[in-house]
Amino acid sequence: MTAAAQMLDTYPADLGGIDRERLTACIEACVECAQACTACADACLSEEMVAGLRKCIRTNLDCADVCEATGRVLSRHTGYDANLTRTVLEACAAACRACGDECASHSGMHEHCRVCAESCRRCEQACRDLVATLG
Amino acid sequence: MTAAAQMLDTYPADLGGIDRERLTACIEACVECAQACTACADACLSEEMVAGLRKCIRTNLDCADVCEATGRVLSRHTGYDANLTRTVLEACAAACRACGDECASHSGMHEHCRVCAESCRRCEQACRDLVATLG
Amino acid sequence: MTAAAQMLDTYPADLGGIDRERLTACIEACVECAQACTACADACLSEEMVAGLRKCIRTNLDCADVCEATGRVLSRHTGYDANLTRTVLEACAAACRACGDECASHSGMHEHCRVCAESCRRCEQACRDLVATLG
Amino acid sequence: MTAAAQMLDTYPADLGGIDRERLTACIEACVECAQACTACADACLSEEMVAGLRKCIRTNLDCADVCEATGRVLSRHTGYDANLTRTVLEACAAACRACGDECASHSGMHEHCRVCAESCRRCEQACRDLVATLG
Repeated sequence: MTAAAQMLDTYPADLGGIDRERLTACIEACVECAQACTACADACLSEEMVAGLRKCIRTNLDCADVCEATGRVLSRHTGYDANLTRTVLEACAAACRACGDECASHSGMHEHCRVCAESCRRCEQACRDLVATLG
Repeated sequence: MTAAAQMLDTYPADLGGIDRERLTACIEACVECAQACTACADACLSEEMVAGLRKCIRTNLDCADVCEATGRVLSRHTGYDANLTRTVLEACAAACRACGDECASHSGMHEHCRVCAESCRRCEQACRDLVATLG
Repeated sequence: MTAAAQMLDTYPADLGGIDRERLTACIEACVECAQACTACADACLSEEMVAGLRKCIRTNLDCADVCEATGRVLSRHTGYDANLTRTVLEACAAACRACGDECASHSGMHEHCRVCAESCRRCEQACRDLVATLG
Repeated sequence: MTAAAQMLDTYPADLGGIDRERLTACIEACVECAQACTACADACLSEEMVAGLRKCIRTNLDCADVCEATGRVLSRHTGYDANLTRTVLEACAAACRACGDECASHSGMHEHCRVCAESCRRCEQACRDLVATLG
């Protein structure tokens, strides 16, 4: 079991009716995606053709920041403001979509973009799956 | 002139038609609000009645994270994905609204909540003003 | 293989002689510990005895911030400034030590503190193991 | 008065003997420097000669992350762990030194690097000034 799942399992209060499995998956996906995007931005910077990867680097950095904030917000539970959770998840899904599309367009040429695109796709899906359960 | 304004003034490329004055104001408001919320969470923790401030602390921490990510996304310019910018600004406005409301409800009792609520109000307004200019 | 390990495996440039296994372990430990500490702070806030957990919450929040920054710095590779890497790792080890000690002192009473303390211990050790390999 | 100064002025507990003026200056410098470095990384990405600015971009991103974490740690007060505060300030001073040196080396050519270098110098100095007051 991951530490994120253990932290949810040992939470001392009610989680307020949120889908625990999807919440766990979404926290883990956000944390993984934030790191992958940070690393992908740096890998792009190391490519000889860095000038052609400017947009990818920016989208990576944006996605890292939004995923990180989303993972943090989702790690706080009692008194969920469903409206805030929803808008944050929508921003995260939008960031992951933009970054996943951009990275996917380079994934034939850059393996790190392929790995990162997969993290973005998983995270986008996890955000949408969790949004779908919010009242 | 603030460093944020100077960084925008010395930007070596076109900002893509975004309203420069509102962008500057929004970046500055996000950065200020993130710090105020981090400090307000800690001030609430120092209050004797901390048990009554749990929701305020959580909202402060959420707002700090979302404002910080928003300030970073807004600090990147070329190739703006207007859709991403809009969803991030909407999440930030929602976080600032929730935190501003919560802090305002304690502002008669806790001066730090009053100062923080003012930062949240300014930041929420700056986000809405900037969203209104996006195509 | 984790996404962090895959990102290192697909890095398009030389990693500059850093111990790849310890680097991977340290990035993963930082990312995990940052999330665990964020969640533990929130779990502490949900405890009835929150007033007795103020120090734990603060140490959790500090540790989360320092681990997150460290995980990001370690995710950037070429042109390592060994001096910067070392000071950042030392700050992270200090934050993990402080938070691990604090959480461990509550781990008999709060399961989330036990889980978090274990993440802190692993991350502290991973930081020290990596520092030991820096020239 | 800045919001950071107001938050310190309205803090409901003793600050534990830390030099309030230097603490305020250091928090403000960290927050400003984090934003300037985020913006400078993006400005460098927009330069035609981006391939020659890889190191500057990385140093900017590292410095932004470390300054942001430092600003957050310094915004929490009671129960200061002087050892943690010191190591974090030392990491921040190292990051600012590295980034200030790198940006200064381009400041004749890129105005944004000149502005950023000044923020880094101020923040490095503010960190050293604060460290000097810790017991």
